[in-house]
Amino acid sequence: MKIRINEHFGEIKESYLFSDIAKRVKAYSAAHPEQKIIRLGIGDVTLPLTDSVIEAMHRAVDEMAESKTFRGYAPEYGYDFLRGAIADYYARMGVALDAEEIFVSDGANSDIGNMVDILGDNDILIPDPVYPVYVDSNLMSGRKATLLEANAENGFLPMPNGIEEKPWLIYLCSPNNPTGAVYNREQLTEWVDFANRTGSLILFDSAYESYIKGDYPHSVYEIEGARSCVIEICSLSKTAGFTGTRCGWTVLPTDLEANGVKLSKLWARRQATKFNGVPYVVQRAAEAAVSEKGHAEAMECVGYYMENARILSEFLKEKGIWFTGGENSPYLWLRCPNGMGSWEFFDYLLENAQIVGTPGEGFGKCGEGYFRLTSFGTRESTIEAVERLRSLL
Amino acid sequence: MKIRINEHFGEIKESYLFSDIAKRVKAYSAAHPEQKIIRLGIGDVTLPLTDSVIEAMHRAVDEMAESKTFRGYAPEYGYDFLRGAIADYYARMGVALDAEEIFVSDGANSDIGNMVDILGDNDILIPDPVYPVYVDSNLMSGRKATLLEANAENGFLPMPNGIEEKPWLIYLCSPNNPTGAVYNREQLTEWVDFANRTGSLILFDSAYESYIKGDYPHSVYEIEGARSCVIEICSLSKTAGFTGTRCGWTVLPTDLEANGVKLSKLWARRQATKFNGVPYVVQRAAEAAVSEKGHAEAMECVGYYMENARILSEFLKEKGIWFTGGENSPYLWLRCPNGMGSWEFFDYLLENAQIVGTPGEGFGKCGEGYFRLTSFGTRESTIEAVERLRSLL
Repeated sequence: MKIRINEHFGEIKESYLFSDIAKRVKAYSAAHPEQKIIRLGIGDVTLPLTDSVIEAMHRAVDEMAESKTFRGYAPEYGYDFLRGAIADYYARMGVALDAEEIFVSDGANSDIGNMVDILGDNDILIPDPVYPVYVDSNLMSGRKATLLEANAENGFLPMPNGIEEKPWLIYLCSPNNPTGAVYNREQLTEWVDFANRTGSLILFDSAYESYIKGDYPHSVYEIEGARSCVIEICSLSKTAGFTGTRCGWTVLPTDLEANGVKLSKLWARRQATKFNGVPYVVQRAAEAAVSEKGHAEAMECVGYYMENARILSEFLKEKGIWFTGGENSPYLWLRCPNGMGSWEFFDYLLENAQIVGTPGEGFGKCGEGYFRLTSFGTRESTIEAVERLRSLL
Repeated sequence: MKIRINEHFGEIKESYLFSDIAKRVKAYSAAHPEQKIIRLGIGDVTLPLTDSVIEAMHRAVDEMAESKTFRGYAPEYGYDFLRGAIADYYARMGVALDAEEIFVSDGANSDIGNMVDILGDNDILIPDPVYPVYVDSNLMSGRKATLLEANAENGFLPMPNGIEEKPWLIYLCSPNNPTGAVYNREQLTEWVDFANRTGSLILFDSAYESYIKGDYPHSVYEIEGARSCVIEICSLSKTAGFTGTRCGWTVLPTDLEANGVKLSKLWARRQATKFNGVPYVVQRAAEAAVSEKGHAEAMECVGYYMENARILSEFLKEKGIWFTGGENSPYLWLRCPNGMGSWEFFDYLLENAQIVGTPGEGFGKCGEGYFRLTSFGTRESTIEAVERLRSLL
């Protein structure tokens, strides 16, 4: 064919970080079928959906079986029952949102990736290391970002001081994926003030807010002034075990306006045109997950994972390995022992302890020499991983 | 804020066709709460999901409730069980596809809209009238298309004769939405030959293939040469009543190559980066829907709708109103009686017969003076609609 393809795809790696890892693990497994691999790599949950969610899904499936209760196309931005339930969820954390400011989707990843559609050519700030979709979705659309360096010196929490005072598109993620670092109230206030002062827009990824145990903001809208400069993107993937069920949302406060246009209107038009909504059965599942009862159940799962995080943390402390995270986040971000490189340590762990983690440099240049472990395994596999690591390191 | 938004959104209408219609209907309903409205507008199904699909969903929900059978992130392009089941579905219509050429998604609309991501700046041909996402997704990304005029003279089936011989990106939809017109084997062969000769790419939307009763191709890959010039996009929305359940797929044969790059690789990278797959429960539902048993059940629903189409067709013939479709498609595309305009006829039907249809000009300039009716209503409402129309027209 002689048609033109998007040449910007040549600027990103041909395969996705987690596809790379999956391939290496597959190759190792094929060569060593007798070995039991412990997966603490990809941030995927392992506990089943909770009772409230399961019951809601069965009920919804039954509704889809009868003419009278069958549901076709959903309202474009989510059913009112779900948008309302999410607004209630925010209200319980002290944040007042109008249900119409909440746009339901199939997950945070899609929304972050698709958000480039409504934006023009901007100066962009993206933390490094960071979840790959921030950088890749911009590269794919021919945009280049300035990296916000996160490192041991700033506790993997880069701040706006020193950044040129002009309008930026700023990506932030707290609790951070991959580093597990969390911004406190003062730090987020600095970011919000910087954004309002410079006319910048912050895309705030709060997908891990449920893992916060200390006194940190769960939603950026807890910070005064955030409504006029932040889009918040959240997901049930990690909160309620929805990685294979797919539901999230994006909040676009009506105050967000650029060049006289409300950003919520642009996103509404993008979604109405290029997306057909979330399955009814999943929306009922999500409604159950954010209800008081469902959320309490979900928090038991979060507690289970956080106990895994504690077990991993204790081990790292015992060995004197530098790390962040694990306290308000399911991720532990450690410096590879003995000066090993990220992929070197990945191979070392896979070959000698049959443990899969994620090489830090997969998340950006500043991740070189670091490694991410997740607490999403089972208790047994987490304990076994620690035992294997103890005899190896 | 001073950030730059995507100014191309200014080039499309602020609201989506079907949102416009919904608003008018809502306003009418509010003013006339006593009136019973019959909706033959938006192409939404009304029959519930079939037994095989419901059983598969309940089973899958049960699996999500147990640690041992719980599923997290799905493989990026769909589970092997579903890609295999779809390949089998094609095999039953005589088309050999490798399961890896099939990319599962949440529906045809998303895939058509997102396809612009992997393409560069091309000369584009889009039929007029047509389903709005083809035009809007291109306008949104700053691209303009040449319209392929469909009209009563060409039976609403525009052909390549007369079109400049150069590489084009060509959108085709057969059976067509909104006109219900269907390309036959010879016509599709002409398009495929034109594309191969000129180095063009065809995006072929086959979402309505199940409604074909006559000897027309269900898949464009029934045509020799299509593998080297066509991406086919299909959906279970209309075949199996999945408008509120959300599952479709896109076929990118490995033969598709432009500038030395396989298009399947670009799409794979786009989806792995900006999409996280279809819910497990929905993938099991889809597997059931394309199985021999599930498809037989679905075809009973299709038969029910096509009987509605026959009832509507008979009435239009009786009244001598010119129309296409309704024979191999759930849509009937009629010329508005008495020289009325599309929106004029829309309001006339809503106000005088409480029937909602879709104004032809909502699908493009060539739709002016035409009107779309769907056969997706219940039998009772379809018969009542005909009675109301008979006393009105």
